[in-house]
Amino acid sequence: MTVALLTDKYELTMLSAALRDGTAQRRASFELFARRLPAGRRYGVVAGTGRFLDALAQFRFDDAALETVAEFCDPATLDYLRDFRFAGDIDGYAEGELYFPDSPVLSVHGTFAECVLLETLSLSIFNHDSAIASAAARMVSAAAGRRLIEMGSRRTHERAAVAAARAAYIAGFDGTSNLEAGRRYAVPALGTSAHAFTMLYTGPDGPDEPAAFRAQVAALGVGTTLLVDTYDVTAGVANAIAAAGTELGAVRIDSGDLGVLAGQVRRQLDELGATGTRIVVSGDLDEFAIAALRAEPVDSYGVGTSLVTGSGAPTANMVYKLVEVDGRPVTKRSSNKQSHGGAKQAARLAKPSGTITEEVVFPAGRPPADAEGARTLTVPLVRGGQRVAPDDIAAARALVADGLTSLPWEGLKLSHGDPAIPTRLVAP
Amino acid sequence: MTVALLTDKYELTMLSAALRDGTAQRRASFELFARRLPAGRRYGVVAGTGRFLDALAQFRFDDAALETVAEFCDPATLDYLRDFRFAGDIDGYAEGELYFPDSPVLSVHGTFAECVLLETLSLSIFNHDSAIASAAARMVSAAAGRRLIEMGSRRTHERAAVAAARAAYIAGFDGTSNLEAGRRYAVPALGTSAHAFTMLYTGPDGPDEPAAFRAQVAALGVGTTLLVDTYDVTAGVANAIAAAGTELGAVRIDSGDLGVLAGQVRRQLDELGATGTRIVVSGDLDEFAIAALRAEPVDSYGVGTSLVTGSGAPTANMVYKLVEVDGRPVTKRSSNKQSHGGAKQAARLAKPSGTITEEVVFPAGRPPADAEGARTLTVPLVRGGQRVAPDDIAAARALVADGLTSLPWEGLKLSHGDPAIPTRLVAP
Repeated sequence: MTVALLTDKYELTMLSAALRDGTAQRRASFELFARRLPAGRRYGVVAGTGRFLDALAQFRFDDAALETVAEFCDPATLDYLRDFRFAGDIDGYAEGELYFPDSPVLSVHGTFAECVLLETLSLSIFNHDSAIASAAARMVSAAAGRRLIEMGSRRTHERAAVAAARAAYIAGFDGTSNLEAGRRYAVPALGTSAHAFTMLYTGPDGPDEPAAFRAQVAALGVGTTLLVDTYDVTAGVANAIAAAGTELGAVRIDSGDLGVLAGQVRRQLDELGATGTRIVVSGDLDEFAIAALRAEPVDSYGVGTSLVTGSGAPTANMVYKLVEVDGRPVTKRSSNKQSHGGAKQAARLAKPSGTITEEVVFPAGRPPADAEGARTLTVPLVRGGQRVAPDDIAAARALVADGLTSLPWEGLKLSHGDPAIPTRLVAP
Repeated sequence: MTVALLTDKYELTMLSAALRDGTAQRRASFELFARRLPAGRRYGVVAGTGRFLDALAQFRFDDAALETVAEFCDPATLDYLRDFRFAGDIDGYAEGELYFPDSPVLSVHGTFAECVLLETLSLSIFNHDSAIASAAARMVSAAAGRRLIEMGSRRTHERAAVAAARAAYIAGFDGTSNLEAGRRYAVPALGTSAHAFTMLYTGPDGPDEPAAFRAQVAALGVGTTLLVDTYDVTAGVANAIAAAGTELGAVRIDSGDLGVLAGQVRRQLDELGATGTRIVVSGDLDEFAIAALRAEPVDSYGVGTSLVTGSGAPTANMVYKLVEVDGRPVTKRSSNKQSHGGAKQAARLAKPSGTITEEVVFPAGRPPADAEGARTLTVPLVRGGQRVAPDDIAAARALVADGLTSLPWEGLKLSHGDPAIPTRLVAP
């Protein structure tokens, strides 16, 4: 299916109206940005760029799509759409870059017609993926180097789950439970087992956890992760080591007071001689719970619901605004929604130590004197409709890691606060 | 692409282990249910059933999927998957039915192998769609008969947006901005225009709102909706009527104090003779803001972010649990996560007036005496792998409407509270 109908109807009716009087061909620049971060957040992480550029290449109107559009648009609009492909230029922040209020995450330049059509799809992708990556990055810093596994597919839309796994991986997660994210984006696919598997081994005499563990080890080897809390954690750990021996890869605890249980299980494993067996915890973890377990002998966190729902901020609330027409800056005057006219670029100032101090957003091509030498954030993504930015998830992942180390220490606090650095908007 | 990889890896590794020792062929029943409603919510709305049954029909492992599975599963598992299609039975609540804690929304019966494979996908669909429908139903009751338009596509994943539009329509919304939801599910697609369109009409002498409105009316007719708050609302309304005449369909206000502005605009429209021109409001509306505007002359609400994010509850937190193996009820004993063994059905008790009083969940086939004559909630969805429930969005929509009228009045309050009716679990 084409992605072109993953779009609001009004993009097409605006196109239709603008085609009638020729204004559709005016040169336009649109910018995608967040007026503010989600409440209390100190930074955001740009994600979705790669997915957006993939979608852009598929943004064509096939016969089925044209049939839908024909229900409400005139033949001239259909003629325009039949041959449509975006032929303009796109600049933006590299995927994995941090962002702050008013950061021009994406700048789309072309005719009004070709730019307006991309509004809904670009926002859907960036708002979703950036919300997930921004939450994930907080979990990564809270985990302080311990492993994080994304396992939230079941708590979100089945396709959003694939994008969420990708965004979490970019933000620093180590892997995902989602197979399609493994296939499509090469995110390491990881897995343990469910309570249902243990409960399957129930006979006339009742549950038989040892049989379940033996079966799992027979199939998956001693490096597997056994889920030990189906019935009784202490008995579960004993059964696990009995089934797998002291080379068992890991045990998972999915319920109860995870901190207390992790300590108990660590002692039990060590006493049994399974000193190398790791402990995975899961169950309603968010960045605060992850941080609270720092003092406990936890090796890996499995994170589900809070990750895929953006930990309280399920959308990044980015907007896509017309900022320039035929070279003239434009702004609207709606109450509380003032936008800043003119195409923009950005740079980020830092101390010699690398700690960032300010985001500078300036009229395109005219950096202020104090931003020369600063790191430029705006990079070319598309030229003449052709993608010029590589699709490189590893690079995006490295950029997030670098970004987190560049934040002033207050920026990594999990508590509510202001953006880690101020944004300075240089007037046109 | 097949939907079969929209699945957690561990479903496949559990399958692999269970195939080795034959336990995969044991008869199993799994149930999908919510242990509790989102905090403070008084009812939930089941949505996703139709999408799940669509996905079930496509749940096959093609060569690309098998290639992915081959990276970590043995040949016997691949042989099993090559010919896989679900051949069991599924019962459940009809789409659009209300649900409460422990309501058995879906009951899946078959071999362990075929049931366990459906866990992730079924949960993704029901958790997402039911979260949206449950939030949407609160907005519908808050709107008290006024029109509601779903326009949140840009705030959520691009495919989740289509499912969200469908779920909102089932819950009683009148239409959506999303074209694909219109094409795929026949949800009425509606639209107005964006600030960008008005701003496009900017020349050397500055903004020209009258020209923008004339262009829109020329293309879309006087029945269109003109967005009047790009620059100044009072001037915008005057320009709108000048461009379209007093037969203008509607004006939209997207910013400012919507209640105050709606009153001002209504008076201005009436003074201009446009007494039939409707007022659409939008901009960060949720069920509380919708209810707060009840006294104002608003005709339609456009709802975005809060709808597609479940208005604070972006997932329904349903789980999928093994409840029966070879006819024997099974339960786990993990702390705080006790499940109730055995396959179940449900009925809902009501007063003669139709007001519901209790949800009764009982062992399948054995309703308690006082539930005979009550409305049975559990209906057949799949028999021998074949869908037996019709795909009927209109029926689902009617069921939500009926459900809302059946709630005790406390159940419709927007404030935090307990479930509207208690759930009685009848022991096996």
